[in-house]
Amino acid sequence: MKKLAIQDYYEDEFSVCYGCGRLNQDGLQLKTFLINNETISKHKPKENKTAINGIVYGGLLASLIDCHGTGSASIFYARENGIELKKYNAPRFVTGNLNVSYLKPTPLETELTLKGQLKEIKGRKVVVSIEVFSQGVLTVKGEVIALLLPENFRG
Amino acid sequence: MKKLAIQDYYEDEFSVCYGCGRLNQDGLQLKTFLINNETISKHKPKENKTAINGIVYGGLLASLIDCHGTGSASIFYARENGIELKKYNAPRFVTGNLNVSYLKPTPLETELTLKGQLKEIKGRKVVVSIEVFSQGVLTVKGEVIALLLPENFRG
Repeated sequence: MKKLAIQDYYEDEFSVCYGCGRLNQDGLQLKTFLINNETISKHKPKENKTAINGIVYGGLLASLIDCHGTGSASIFYARENGIELKKYNAPRFVTGNLNVSYLKPTPLETELTLKGQLKEIKGRKVVVSIEVFSQGVLTVKGEVIALLLPENFRG
Repeated sequence: MKKLAIQDYYEDEFSVCYGCGRLNQDGLQLKTFLINNETISKHKPKENKTAINGIVYGGLLASLIDCHGTGSASIFYARENGIELKKYNAPRFVTGNLNVSYLKPTPLETELTLKGQLKEIKGRKVVVSIEVFSQGVLTVKGEVIALLLPENFRG
């Protein structure tokens, strides 16, 4: 059986995100997995997501980091709190702060790999450090401060 | 005659950005103007750019701040250095660091206004503070550290 991503465990109402919602047909549908002690997402940018010819648009990179960050926060929070993931009980995080450093141009033609590591977890707040790699080369670094949505929150 | 945005003064090669390039037909085509001492861009998000139903996707907000930031940097740099804008001599900035704080949910149904203020200008580096308003309510704050592309840079 294929391993499910954290986004497959969000309830329907929290699955319409343009970046990672499985129910957003127009969106990027980012999928985030825990592998050993870090989180992984992969994404191949479309040709029109350019900054300058051949280079990935910074807004897309920020978007990927954002969704990889909230997905990673959900994974780390579930692990920390002994939540066994099933459909559809994944804790849903939103971004409080997003910080992105563009270290070098990111080529458009190949798939990108995002890696996330837990930096801090305290109550409803989870901080995730994120790196973006293009063919093994680190091109962008980011950090997401993610906040668990209150139980009574509905969009 | 209609006033032109800074993005209308970028040379063609630097006008393919998904966020603000006039030549990227699929993109957001953000337009940034100097009004008095601050920069203004406006954008109406498409319906599919959701985070949760009715709320704007954080990645789009980061993308708008990114392009508003580089456009503002170009405007402020040109003013500081006495560059009279004409087609196509606008200085082209890229983002070194992007920081976004999501203060409250941003409603999807109305046009957003981005405002930018010059925080620091030093050599090739311009720092811009940015605020995003929805119907007059501040929902997101950001800062962009923008770097002037070297003369010999080509994508």
